[in-house]
Amino acid sequence: MRADGRADDELRPITITRNWLDHAAGSVLIEFGGTKVLCAASASEGVPRWRKGSGLGWVTAEYAMLPAATNTRSDRESVKGRIGGRTHEISRLIGRSLRAVIDYKALGENTIVIDCDVLQADGGTRTASVTGAYVALADAVAHLRSTGALTGEPLTGSVAAVSVGIIDGVPRLDLPYEEDVRAETDMNVVMTGAGSFVEVQGTAEGAAFDRTELDALLDLAAKGCVDLTRLQQEALAR
Amino acid sequence: MRADGRADDELRPITITRNWLDHAAGSVLIEFGGTKVLCAASASEGVPRWRKGSGLGWVTAEYAMLPAATNTRSDRESVKGRIGGRTHEISRLIGRSLRAVIDYKALGENTIVIDCDVLQADGGTRTASVTGAYVALADAVAHLRSTGALTGEPLTGSVAAVSVGIIDGVPRLDLPYEEDVRAETDMNVVMTGAGSFVEVQGTAEGAAFDRTELDALLDLAAKGCVDLTRLQQEALAR
Amino acid sequence: MRADGRADDELRPITITRNWLDHAAGSVLIEFGGTKVLCAASASEGVPRWRKGSGLGWVTAEYAMLPAATNTRSDRESVKGRIGGRTHEISRLIGRSLRAVIDYKALGENTIVIDCDVLQADGGTRTASVTGAYVALADAVAHLRSTGALTGEPLTGSVAAVSVGIIDGVPRLDLPYEEDVRAETDMNVVMTGAGSFVEVQGTAEGAAFDRTELDALLDLAAKGCVDLTRLQQEALAR
Amino acid sequence: MRADGRADDELRPITITRNWLDHAAGSVLIEFGGTKVLCAASASEGVPRWRKGSGLGWVTAEYAMLPAATNTRSDRESVKGRIGGRTHEISRLIGRSLRAVIDYKALGENTIVIDCDVLQADGGTRTASVTGAYVALADAVAHLRSTGALTGEPLTGSVAAVSVGIIDGVPRLDLPYEEDVRAETDMNVVMTGAGSFVEVQGTAEGAAFDRTELDALLDLAAKGCVDLTRLQQEALAR
Amino acid sequence: MRADGRADDELRPITITRNWLDHAAGSVLIEFGGTKVLCAASASEGVPRWRKGSGLGWVTAEYAMLPAATNTRSDRESVKGRIGGRTHEISRLIGRSLRAVIDYKALGENTIVIDCDVLQADGGTRTASVTGAYVALADAVAHLRSTGALTGEPLTGSVAAVSVGIIDGVPRLDLPYEEDVRAETDMNVVMTGAGSFVEVQGTAEGAAFDRTELDALLDLAAKGCVDLTRLQQEALAR
Amino acid sequence: MRADGRADDELRPITITRNWLDHAAGSVLIEFGGTKVLCAASASEGVPRWRKGSGLGWVTAEYAMLPAATNTRSDRESVKGRIGGRTHEISRLIGRSLRAVIDYKALGENTIVIDCDVLQADGGTRTASVTGAYVALADAVAHLRSTGALTGEPLTGSVAAVSVGIIDGVPRLDLPYEEDVRAETDMNVVMTGAGSFVEVQGTAEGAAFDRTELDALLDLAAKGCVDLTRLQQEALAR
Repeated sequence: MRADGRADDELRPITITRNWLDHAAGSVLIEFGGTKVLCAASASEGVPRWRKGSGLGWVTAEYAMLPAATNTRSDRESVKGRIGGRTHEISRLIGRSLRAVIDYKALGENTIVIDCDVLQADGGTRTASVTGAYVALADAVAHLRSTGALTGEPLTGSVAAVSVGIIDGVPRLDLPYEEDVRAETDMNVVMTGAGSFVEVQGTAEGAAFDRTELDALLDLAAKGCVDLTRLQQEALAR
Repeated sequence: MRADGRADDELRPITITRNWLDHAAGSVLIEFGGTKVLCAASASEGVPRWRKGSGLGWVTAEYAMLPAATNTRSDRESVKGRIGGRTHEISRLIGRSLRAVIDYKALGENTIVIDCDVLQADGGTRTASVTGAYVALADAVAHLRSTGALTGEPLTGSVAAVSVGIIDGVPRLDLPYEEDVRAETDMNVVMTGAGSFVEVQGTAEGAAFDRTELDALLDLAAKGCVDLTRLQQEALAR
Repeated sequence: MRADGRADDELRPITITRNWLDHAAGSVLIEFGGTKVLCAASASEGVPRWRKGSGLGWVTAEYAMLPAATNTRSDRESVKGRIGGRTHEISRLIGRSLRAVIDYKALGENTIVIDCDVLQADGGTRTASVTGAYVALADAVAHLRSTGALTGEPLTGSVAAVSVGIIDGVPRLDLPYEEDVRAETDMNVVMTGAGSFVEVQGTAEGAAFDRTELDALLDLAAKGCVDLTRLQQEALAR
Repeated sequence: MRADGRADDELRPITITRNWLDHAAGSVLIEFGGTKVLCAASASEGVPRWRKGSGLGWVTAEYAMLPAATNTRSDRESVKGRIGGRTHEISRLIGRSLRAVIDYKALGENTIVIDCDVLQADGGTRTASVTGAYVALADAVAHLRSTGALTGEPLTGSVAAVSVGIIDGVPRLDLPYEEDVRAETDMNVVMTGAGSFVEVQGTAEGAAFDRTELDALLDLAAKGCVDLTRLQQEALAR
Repeated sequence: MRADGRADDELRPITITRNWLDHAAGSVLIEFGGTKVLCAASASEGVPRWRKGSGLGWVTAEYAMLPAATNTRSDRESVKGRIGGRTHEISRLIGRSLRAVIDYKALGENTIVIDCDVLQADGGTRTASVTGAYVALADAVAHLRSTGALTGEPLTGSVAAVSVGIIDGVPRLDLPYEEDVRAETDMNVVMTGAGSFVEVQGTAEGAAFDRTELDALLDLAAKGCVDLTRLQQEALAR
Repeated sequence: MRADGRADDELRPITITRNWLDHAAGSVLIEFGGTKVLCAASASEGVPRWRKGSGLGWVTAEYAMLPAATNTRSDRESVKGRIGGRTHEISRLIGRSLRAVIDYKALGENTIVIDCDVLQADGGTRTASVTGAYVALADAVAHLRSTGALTGEPLTGSVAAVSVGIIDGVPRLDLPYEEDVRAETDMNVVMTGAGSFVEVQGTAEGAAFDRTELDALLDLAAKGCVDLTRLQQEALAR
């Protein structure tokens, strides 16, 4: 039995609030249980210099955590003057995940930057970020279409992400912080709405894991991504 | 007539939501119209090295703006690797304002850091930050008392802040962005709940201002701070 | 009685030495008692990128303190790799003060940078900087006119600045370090030669201050700025 | 048929040269075809501050690439003043991989840092780094034992890593640069000598991948890690 | 008698291995006894912005040391976020030395960057770098000629460098680390193949030195540079 | 004939003004013609961590140039966030030069930092810095003795420095900027008052130089250092 009463293959309560900000082309406050991430998509004409004149667009992401998001306050990376490895790693993961469902040609020479700022962290901040970022991206694309900045469909599908892990020998879906720190193996999986894999990142925390455990985790993640895809669609339909 | 229909001496709708976060000792989402600032107070035992063994506590603040908080996305200071002058200036202002109502001795060797992160900016982010930070600070002090970390009363009063400015020759209270950029003179005033001044920062944007204008602005600010003090007290009483 | 024998409304001995450097378009060594600031105005054709093609000029300032300027040596900001909040704050204050008396159109697409480097600090470094920077700026403008780089008059007036404070309940003008650290309230005021306010920055150091005290300080500052304006004019007439 | 004539499940020629440096506790020049990585393990008494007094050791890794390692010279991260996301990500991966086979208690309060510097890059630099780093680590552990700094066995197994990918629909082992840039899916797998997984990092480069493809890649990686483990053992036996 | 059995005016065993890398236009692994430096010359079309349109080429160098190159591991400059003074100093020395034998006009608007990365340090890393960098530069020039990027001869001569010092009152050539730390005076000399001086950098470590000692050191250095020039020519002839 | 009418072996007018600052233990404004450097020596009890408990003192130096010191304004290194190679190089040269005449044991565990800030640059800023820094150091030592912080004599001699160069084939002493940029060879020489060499740094700017030229430059520098030593002694005797 999990501390919060969930079944092993059950997501935490998921909330997706669109248009949380007034200015951004797309903005979503996404909550995976106690984890709250503000995902804001800013659209601008033009692309980075290395891409100019290609006719192709660009999508990128930046992830960060507010100092008081975690139990113990962490120092600001702006004050330290450098971005940590974990921040870099997650920013890159979110960017790659979104780009997996973007047709750069249909986007044209437009750039969309998605900022994922963790307001409160309780495990799964990177998977909540990917899942919310997709919704913000879809809203930004719709916004660009409404302003006439693009006419085609740059989105070739949707993406969602979830964490899975083995705790006390049992595979579980969508780990809160309390389970995350106890997990023997921890995996983050990003999948398209069509059920294919975009990213699979599994890490042995305590002991190495065998193929059977890996398979069980992948099954569980696939189940969670189906649920999240449905929640994304419902939110976008509202 | 102001664009949002307010009287010249009227505040925007102010919302103060306490306990917006689960972890921080005190946390407040404060809204001055479209301006939304998340103020989180983190309390920890001990003080910075230069203060150790003095028996005195410490209170400090950090201000920052999310990239998508403004109309046009701004680059992250963590990515740029340095904090800008404006951020430094406002962080220092908030810290000084809060320290004006702290009795270090009663606080004992505890440190409270207040993070003010602007989620959305529509003018007055520094005054909303000071006003919300005080409420978060009061909650953090109450939290420290509840855990037995302190017994006395480190708060010697309350502080609130408001912006005032002269637009088209007319003094106005609590400027939104649209008025702020048009203001000939712009002043931020921090006052105690008892009606004394903590900070007065007036800047001629277009033309220098005379003593009569300065006096009118100070009167208006005093009126606004009285209103804000009442709203703080109501929020803390809830 | 003040430690240096001055009346409460009396400036310290002020020295303004023009053309202290050979290369700069304008250069002034200004002394407010023991405070010595070297103000150098460098003029160059062209403006920052964001202003190109506007037909408007630009004026900005940078403030810094030599490591041995104060009683205890302070670390270099270049060695630390970052500029501190206080430095940022004062650089911005000086820039805003000078821009208050500049007609950008008459300046044309020229840029003037004023560097204020504190060689020795004994209180009032920012007000000495503003006061000296104006004289260096006037010399740089004259230099630009002499080279034919401009023909009109970009200066719409003069600016001077002074500190005031309340020490042991008594308002005093132009505080040396020894009074500055003891002040209950500390205010820096920048005024035009015509007697209007450009910046008013008052800070309660110990206790908050009331309107009567604020008024007394503003009166004292106005008196000091009149004296400084006269000294600037005398220096420029030499 | 692959450009270098290899079978799809065949490693490139692998060379492991131990004791390449005179000073380091362990040092290995490892070559995966044209990829050359110098892995140097430095051992020192004591542990980072946050671990002091725990009785536990620490193992960490740093990865970097020389500017001329790639086809087009890249700028030095030391000159840019910041470490890029890719460097951070790979350093963390190597560190985690090595820590998976370390018994901190048996290591005692000793620290081993493994530097993996890519002298020449032709694909698979991170997997060559992990594979070579393990050998350097084993030598460093032997060195510590020979000096009496430890008596037990801190190594609980071995680790090796290999890249796999799908090129033109065909799963292939150990991708050189030329295949890596063409891969639709790219996966890096770290396994213990006992055949369990330590890290699985799969990324869809072009199109998302399905479970069948994922399974084929995992099979191929497992085969490659068995071969690499044998080569590590042979090198350590010399 | 020297610890390694050499005569006082004898170089350590010198090895110059050309084409150590596959990608760089010129690459040399040079060894002065235990000191190993990888010198890689990267050639690219175009010149830095300040030189564009001049018809002149550019040659520059960067020096760095791997963390494990020395007896005790040193921190990476990329991790520290800044380049140290010693690194700056040596990079500048190598660049100046190479530019002394370059005809910028004959090079045309091409840039050659020589990276000197110390893989193992045992004294004389800067002199080994200069000596090896010249060979890599010559190979890069030959490469540019073979691709038709230039037709004339940009090399006006060759350069080599050696260290000399006074140990226990005796002048000695080419100091290993063990002698370097004991030297009373330490001098690095860069000379052309034609026997003229490019750089003379002498430093009193313990006691100041007189003109007689200086003359003896210069004689010794001249002898060493003649030997190194011959070794460079032999390597380039292979 | 030189542009300023000097003989080839003649120094520019040298001015050494002691006690230019009120706070520093020693402070000197030194002028070599148009070059003005403010040298301030700050003394403090204690030594850097790596030297604690050794009973030995420490002397170090920092060199910097004000932005407007040169003909064209240069950017501040604090604003750029990093120190340039030239600054590093000169700071290190000054420090080494001063340490050549310090008896660390007699200094005891005291630290003296000498800041050399170039207020105006007209060639020879590093040699003026060394020459002025010695005088500031001597004053700081006297100050430490007067406060009882030391009793012995930590100064084992004096140091002075001068630039020499070959212009149009003629060796000249103490080059102003205008000669410096035209010099074929440029040498900076630091000597003790007793006539021994501390640093010899010669650089071929245009063409390599032969032994005869080197000898002529060394003779000229020795002559200049004798003159400067006399001027230092006269200044210290005042």
